Amino acid sequence: MTTTLDAPPLGPMLDDIVRSHRPQREAGSVPAHIPSLAAVPFNRFGIAVATAAGEVFASGDADVPFSIQSISKVFTLAMALRRDSSGALWSRVLREPSGTAFNSLVQLEVEHGIPRNPFINAGALVVTDHLMEETPDAAAALLSFLSGQSGQAGPFFDVAAAASELSNSSRNLALAHFLKNFGNLRQSAEAVVENYVRQCSIMMTCVELAKAGLFLADDGRGALGTVVSRSEAKRIGSIMLTCGMYDAAGEFAYRVGLPGKSGVGGGILVIVPGHCAICVWSPRLDAKGNSLAGSAALADLSDRTGWSVF
Amino acid sequence: MTTTLDAPPLGPMLDDIVRSHRPQREAGSVPAHIPSLAAVPFNRFGIAVATAAGEVFASGDADVPFSIQSISKVFTLAMALRRDSSGALWSRVLREPSGTAFNSLVQLEVEHGIPRNPFINAGALVVTDHLMEETPDAAAALLSFLSGQSGQAGPFFDVAAAASELSNSSRNLALAHFLKNFGNLRQSAEAVVENYVRQCSIMMTCVELAKAGLFLADDGRGALGTVVSRSEAKRIGSIMLTCGMYDAAGEFAYRVGLPGKSGVGGGILVIVPGHCAICVWSPRLDAKGNSLAGSAALADLSDRTGWSVF
Amino acid sequence: MTTTLDAPPLGPMLDDIVRSHRPQREAGSVPAHIPSLAAVPFNRFGIAVATAAGEVFASGDADVPFSIQSISKVFTLAMALRRDSSGALWSRVLREPSGTAFNSLVQLEVEHGIPRNPFINAGALVVTDHLMEETPDAAAALLSFLSGQSGQAGPFFDVAAAASELSNSSRNLALAHFLKNFGNLRQSAEAVVENYVRQCSIMMTCVELAKAGLFLADDGRGALGTVVSRSEAKRIGSIMLTCGMYDAAGEFAYRVGLPGKSGVGGGILVIVPGHCAICVWSPRLDAKGNSLAGSAALADLSDRTGWSVF
Amino acid sequence: MTTTLDAPPLGPMLDDIVRSHRPQREAGSVPAHIPSLAAVPFNRFGIAVATAAGEVFASGDADVPFSIQSISKVFTLAMALRRDSSGALWSRVLREPSGTAFNSLVQLEVEHGIPRNPFINAGALVVTDHLMEETPDAAAALLSFLSGQSGQAGPFFDVAAAASELSNSSRNLALAHFLKNFGNLRQSAEAVVENYVRQCSIMMTCVELAKAGLFLADDGRGALGTVVSRSEAKRIGSIMLTCGMYDAAGEFAYRVGLPGKSGVGGGILVIVPGHCAICVWSPRLDAKGNSLAGSAALADLSDRTGWSVF
Repeated sequence: MTTTLDAPPLGPMLDDIVRSHRPQREAGSVPAHIPSLAAVPFNRFGIAVATAAGEVFASGDADVPFSIQSISKVFTLAMALRRDSSGALWSRVLREPSGTAFNSLVQLEVEHGIPRNPFINAGALVVTDHLMEETPDAAAALLSFLSGQSGQAGPFFDVAAAASELSNSSRNLALAHFLKNFGNLRQSAEAVVENYVRQCSIMMTCVELAKAGLFLADDGRGALGTVVSRSEAKRIGSIMLTCGMYDAAGEFAYRVGLPGKSGVGGGILVIVPGHCAICVWSPRLDAKGNSLAGSAALADLSDRTGWSVF
Repeated sequence: MTTTLDAPPLGPMLDDIVRSHRPQREAGSVPAHIPSLAAVPFNRFGIAVATAAGEVFASGDADVPFSIQSISKVFTLAMALRRDSSGALWSRVLREPSGTAFNSLVQLEVEHGIPRNPFINAGALVVTDHLMEETPDAAAALLSFLSGQSGQAGPFFDVAAAASELSNSSRNLALAHFLKNFGNLRQSAEAVVENYVRQCSIMMTCVELAKAGLFLADDGRGALGTVVSRSEAKRIGSIMLTCGMYDAAGEFAYRVGLPGKSGVGGGILVIVPGHCAICVWSPRLDAKGNSLAGSAALADLSDRTGWSVF
Repeated sequence: MTTTLDAPPLGPMLDDIVRSHRPQREAGSVPAHIPSLAAVPFNRFGIAVATAAGEVFASGDADVPFSIQSISKVFTLAMALRRDSSGALWSRVLREPSGTAFNSLVQLEVEHGIPRNPFINAGALVVTDHLMEETPDAAAALLSFLSGQSGQAGPFFDVAAAASELSNSSRNLALAHFLKNFGNLRQSAEAVVENYVRQCSIMMTCVELAKAGLFLADDGRGALGTVVSRSEAKRIGSIMLTCGMYDAAGEFAYRVGLPGKSGVGGGILVIVPGHCAICVWSPRLDAKGNSLAGSAALADLSDRTGWSVF
Repeated sequence: MTTTLDAPPLGPMLDDIVRSHRPQREAGSVPAHIPSLAAVPFNRFGIAVATAAGEVFASGDADVPFSIQSISKVFTLAMALRRDSSGALWSRVLREPSGTAFNSLVQLEVEHGIPRNPFINAGALVVTDHLMEETPDAAAALLSFLSGQSGQAGPFFDVAAAASELSNSSRNLALAHFLKNFGNLRQSAEAVVENYVRQCSIMMTCVELAKAGLFLADDGRGALGTVVSRSEAKRIGSIMLTCGMYDAAGEFAYRVGLPGKSGVGGGILVIVPGHCAICVWSPRLDAKGNSLAGSAALADLSDRTGWSVF
């Protein structure tokens, strides 16, 4: 692995990746249910790499804040596991791939309200509920955590986007009430969804997200000390690889070969175990909901560096 | 990775793993629908490691032949990809995790007869059908391939077991006819199932399977030259990690952190990319259909060696 | 039909049915999620018949009020159809049997938020939403309608039961938010569920329900004039026969052979087209959620009278 | 009922219905998987009524043979019930509506191989298997039964159509093997499907089918004596009403209000309990697989006669 890493200097490589992958025309889609995301110019493209050695490489729009959306699920999971020494969380949510959204609804019924993994919405609602028991304002705690890990005051709530998304969250409310019906939600459905929506509305840059995610590549060690145990960091990485890219986990595992988590804001956080965290961002999405240019750029980067775990 | 590898010599470590994990009492289950598997003594336990450097380490019942069952799917996939320069196979089968057997049946209906991955039975039937177009007796070709890769005449068909299993293959026949109904089977349903059952009935030892699987850890290079391209070897590894352990892929990815494929005969083939292939065998299964002692042994070995990709 | 009707005088026949079917021991179940229903003595049993000729026959606990629960769905459907000259309701809910609760959830997803019929909960929520557009307090309007049709001030809300049920309505809230997500709910999910729960909490006697339902047997003509057209009365009857008994519609169609609608309060309303309406009540339920003694009594009555439509 | 019946003489009424409903242009569809059915001219239209009083009225192409297809299921069910004094059949197949084809497949899995009713294909295969235990050539027995009931030698096998359909029966073979997998098929899957396909290939005229179905309207009494008990005749009628028209049972119950069973050959058999049997035929189908002109004609006839049971 060392040889490959040394070969091309990372800075120029990222510049070249920005040149190759920044969208030239308006391809892909934006999520219909979140108006604020549709307003982002299609040709935004940023990438950042934070290494365990303490270096940060960045290129393109790597300092432009964007909506982290579901990438937040990685961090709330880490926060929940940090306090879950008894393993109680894993009796409330499974750790297996889920297939399509369609199946996951059937699955919730068939498996009696136990979501299939923490990265589908139902699972993230359970994680949020779990966090809220000790920390009622889990979204504020997440913001504080992300600011601490990224070493800057950068991350902030997009209050208007959260309000807009909250007024349009029927599906998440349905899931939350359904979980409640199965006895797998302790706070009120409304409170959990409100908190979850605020988590998703956090704005961060590629640089901030790469730094915030570095602990997952570094045996659980973050900017301010141990975040989770080495074992928990591995656990999160394995869930990212098998469940992190909606219904394209298999394709991403092949093309990129690294644990990743995407959000419909166009960001993707990727872990190179033992070495670095990568964040790429470009707003337009493919049919599965993952950043179109971002996925292509990560496949390219993986090919150039040999970082695939396979 | 190098340091960890060097630390404990592999031979004594495997001996210790056999001592720790060989079943002392009759726990776990055997597959109800394949009588011959039920006859294997519960305390069988073998393990073998074949390295890219050409060494083979083994311990326990590593030279006792067992029924490879679904581990065959890894090799038929490799054989199919080797001849599939046009990528036609991937229009007939997806590469995404499938969730439960229940979901996979719904999925086959919802996705119009395209199986979710090559390691569920429906997907393996499509792979077999694909192989049979060029090589009508795909099972014989598989046996020949396995003998060639393992460098010995060891692998053989368990003819009686195949006959027994064939007389009890209603579910596979249902799947095959259903695929045919969707236009995704070219040979007759009966011929494909017959060939598939014979593939599963092949008997091999841990040593033979580890040697036969080594090409997947070595950029596609096998005993007799290139089997598949480096890219295809990565592809197969990523499918093993996300889909190789029935409905326990996520759990196995966490506990072992390596691409694996299990069979209801109690064998598990595991790939350590760039380094070695491992085969462990013990006949009793857990609730998901994976070897109980084998899974535990692999988790232990992964902990001792640090081979997890996460 | 005339001859059979005349044969045994109806009054003594109902007395005999009460003697034969009043529960002697505590068989069957009560709904776990509605505590107030569990308090009703197991040996309650009442029956009433209201004929198109204006006669009312009753026996047993026919004057004891009970919770009408889902029987309310028949009347809200009639009220909605009365005002739905354009047929707009039928673009929001289908008229086909639904099979199990399990299927109906899948169905709601597969058919994009259009419930399969007005008698499953999702369908009744849409009917309530439809009513609320013109009549915000649809539950009060229903109470008024039922009082008017039964010709007495009897029907009343069980306010405590409604409050208790409302605090325990996660599943209905999940359905309502899910409908909202598909654009098939105009009022807020909370308001619709609140109104629906109050409708279900109405307390009525067998005599009152038989009189209130008579218009369905009499070409749509009720106590205060035409309720619905003859055609709409037939429509409601056909939906009752195919969808009125949860997942036992087929069995009830055979054993009783008449359109019926049951509620988990233990009541069943049955229509003998052209002749009479019947209400039977006994609180203990079978595995499908229908009154155990009530179903048996109706089968007996159908055999004695030859009223089956088959 | 009597008054309505007398009013318009039935003969002229049927002539008028033929005039009104015989297709003038090529609307609707033909089943893609049965080539022989596509060859029938679109403007064929016939209707026949056989009364319990022994009269037969007919008009249009009422003497042209057509493929009875799924209408055969009504008669095989009657034949199976006739010999099933122990009720064993009802432990192998349910009697409840099934919803869509999609749901019925899930249902077969969820309910462990027990088809939801005898009129979906899976249920009809079980009925055929049940018949074959005593009468290996159940199709020949059905032909003989139909000839006997219709009082003429008319019914015959369309051997070429059966052969063509058999070569194209992957879906039925899938269902049969799936039933076998659950232990709910005693003969071989191939033999049951072959027999079932021959049953469906029987050719009959409207007049013959109306006469053959008359026992269902006449308390089980057929041309050659009692076919089934009065109770079994009611049972079959109730299953026809709730399950006889594929996924349009609810709509048909409303528009026509009578037990019916359709086939993709364009025929519909309808029962007016206590009075008569009706057969209408026109080959083009609606989206649910029921005769387009036939359904409309039956709704018209029901309106004119007041024969609806609701």
